[in-house]
Amino acid sequence: MEQVLSENNLVISVDAMGGDKSPQVVIEGLAIAAKHNRDIRFLVFGDEEQVQAELKKYPILKDVCQLRHSPERVHNEDKPSQVIRNKNTSMYQAIDAVRQGEAQAVVSAGNTGALMAISKMLLKTIQKIHRPAIVSIMPHRYGKYVMLDLGANTECNAVNLAEFAVMGNVLAKHALGIERPKIALLNIGAEEMKGKEEIRHASQMIRNSSMDIDFIGYIEPHEITFGKADVVVADGFTGNVALKTMEGTAKLIRSMVKDAVKSSFLALLGLPFMYFAVRKISKTMNPKLYNGAMFVGLNGLSVKSHGGTDALGFSVAINNAATLVRQNFVATIKEELEHIDLEEISQDIFYEVY
Amino acid sequence: MEQVLSENNLVISVDAMGGDKSPQVVIEGLAIAAKHNRDIRFLVFGDEEQVQAELKKYPILKDVCQLRHSPERVHNEDKPSQVIRNKNTSMYQAIDAVRQGEAQAVVSAGNTGALMAISKMLLKTIQKIHRPAIVSIMPHRYGKYVMLDLGANTECNAVNLAEFAVMGNVLAKHALGIERPKIALLNIGAEEMKGKEEIRHASQMIRNSSMDIDFIGYIEPHEITFGKADVVVADGFTGNVALKTMEGTAKLIRSMVKDAVKSSFLALLGLPFMYFAVRKISKTMNPKLYNGAMFVGLNGLSVKSHGGTDALGFSVAINNAATLVRQNFVATIKEELEHIDLEEISQDIFYEVY
Repeated sequence: MEQVLSENNLVISVDAMGGDKSPQVVIEGLAIAAKHNRDIRFLVFGDEEQVQAELKKYPILKDVCQLRHSPERVHNEDKPSQVIRNKNTSMYQAIDAVRQGEAQAVVSAGNTGALMAISKMLLKTIQKIHRPAIVSIMPHRYGKYVMLDLGANTECNAVNLAEFAVMGNVLAKHALGIERPKIALLNIGAEEMKGKEEIRHASQMIRNSSMDIDFIGYIEPHEITFGKADVVVADGFTGNVALKTMEGTAKLIRSMVKDAVKSSFLALLGLPFMYFAVRKISKTMNPKLYNGAMFVGLNGLSVKSHGGTDALGFSVAINNAATLVRQNFVATIKEELEHIDLEEISQDIFYEVY
Repeated sequence: MEQVLSENNLVISVDAMGGDKSPQVVIEGLAIAAKHNRDIRFLVFGDEEQVQAELKKYPILKDVCQLRHSPERVHNEDKPSQVIRNKNTSMYQAIDAVRQGEAQAVVSAGNTGALMAISKMLLKTIQKIHRPAIVSIMPHRYGKYVMLDLGANTECNAVNLAEFAVMGNVLAKHALGIERPKIALLNIGAEEMKGKEEIRHASQMIRNSSMDIDFIGYIEPHEITFGKADVVVADGFTGNVALKTMEGTAKLIRSMVKDAVKSSFLALLGLPFMYFAVRKISKTMNPKLYNGAMFVGLNGLSVKSHGGTDALGFSVAINNAATLVRQNFVATIKEELEHIDLEEISQDIFYEVY
């Protein structure tokens, strides 16, 4: 199978052993992704016997996968400090394939902390970026938006936030095809003096910088879902709180609607009429279609699939990775950063303000 | 009308000039509240002519309201630093009535920052409480819960968070009737070492204290809506982000459902069948029914109604205030705090950890 990778193809390395139902769901996900992306080749890491048994089920994967045996796997309870020392896991080896240039991106449904720790160690942060961030593409009323950081950095300073804005801008341009994305900082008020110091400081820094971005100032959480911004920038704690609150609220409403319909005989009778409407909403809001949080700011692409996703969800994570590789995402970020020195601007502002 | 207040009644002072459609909505709200609470008397502050005209419309208010003329009002764009110096506004005078013991609580639909600033200045913080908090009662899948701080304090330390836990506990007991409320700190992970330093520190402090509360540790945002805790404690920034994210997500889903139904002829046909189911959901989720954020930690009760609410919503804010007065909320908090010295525990933990 060696020739699989020798061609001039887009190669994605895959941790076949991550997630709740691996390797079954992962391999089925590859089969779905392969159908829609004839140019992708997969470098699959995992238990040879188990993965081979799954690969056999999908003829479409025969000529596009290369399997490599990894004797161990990362477990959900493993600590980042342990996993970065174990070179025998499928996750470690899948990421290392990106470092070695064999693949252009890695996708795993395994332990998030472990994936971030190994990715940081092996791929290293892009020069001029201090902290990588977790990014996702999400639905709003009129389209999609990019949100970061979703949990990589609990505490962020103004420079980190400004760097996230640069990376989010590139992502929205390339993954969403928005020519001039509107960038906003997540805050709890619209006025310039509202919120935390680091947010106010980041706002000043972005305004004073030579960054060629459409910075629209602050966005409040209830405005996100109505498309006020194409890129929403927050520290990892706040971003994670917002993300999980959306998840919880959507689940609450879904279960309340189900209960209400079930408890009304009339509503049950009316249910068939609702079929197409319900299908349409499910399509737009289906969390599977937004699977695949990307780690950005590293010399290489690392994509985290939800651990509990199904094959369709995993294929979406693969698609996300492939889109960014095709758009030369990492190189573009490096290029955009070349002309900006946020540290320097940061110094200037400090002198101005204090 | 002086005898209105001389009786041994529950008295609530009301800023009649706050909110988008004042004094109309406010006075109509009082009429609704009066119907359900025969024991409440209202001390109403506002423009005499305008308010009198409204009062005349509701015979039920004739014997339960005392109107006092305030020549000015607080506007939405007024800064807290200005409003605390102007004793002529209806908001200032309504709060001052609580300080002077004429009323036991104040309700206003005006400028939140102004209400907080004047309330803090006139009512003062309870001894042993460092920072007042904004609290609300909200719906989850199986009932209601208390959440604080929703925006009074952008930055909080561990002592502040532990104090919020004590106040939230009292509120859940008295306003929700939960005998032993489950208290949790909002965080982005379940493990003891996750999240921000002040949250971890607060967790230790509460565990090491003599507080008699059922502290269940951390809660993640997506667990809130499923009733894991009766009291959710966060700093004001995080709490405000969570609150507004819920609001935005609920609005997004509502508008997507509307769009989907409208664009399907079949669904429109089925709509009448859904009537009772929709009414049930609207009843549970109706934001008006959760109107009335309370400022707790002060020597007196100050309740903020949403500025854009209707009369029903304003009456809910009045009900919330009345419930807490009847339960002797302020005195109970003081009592509970008597036996706890969080500062001291805080010192102990610092020595232990560092």
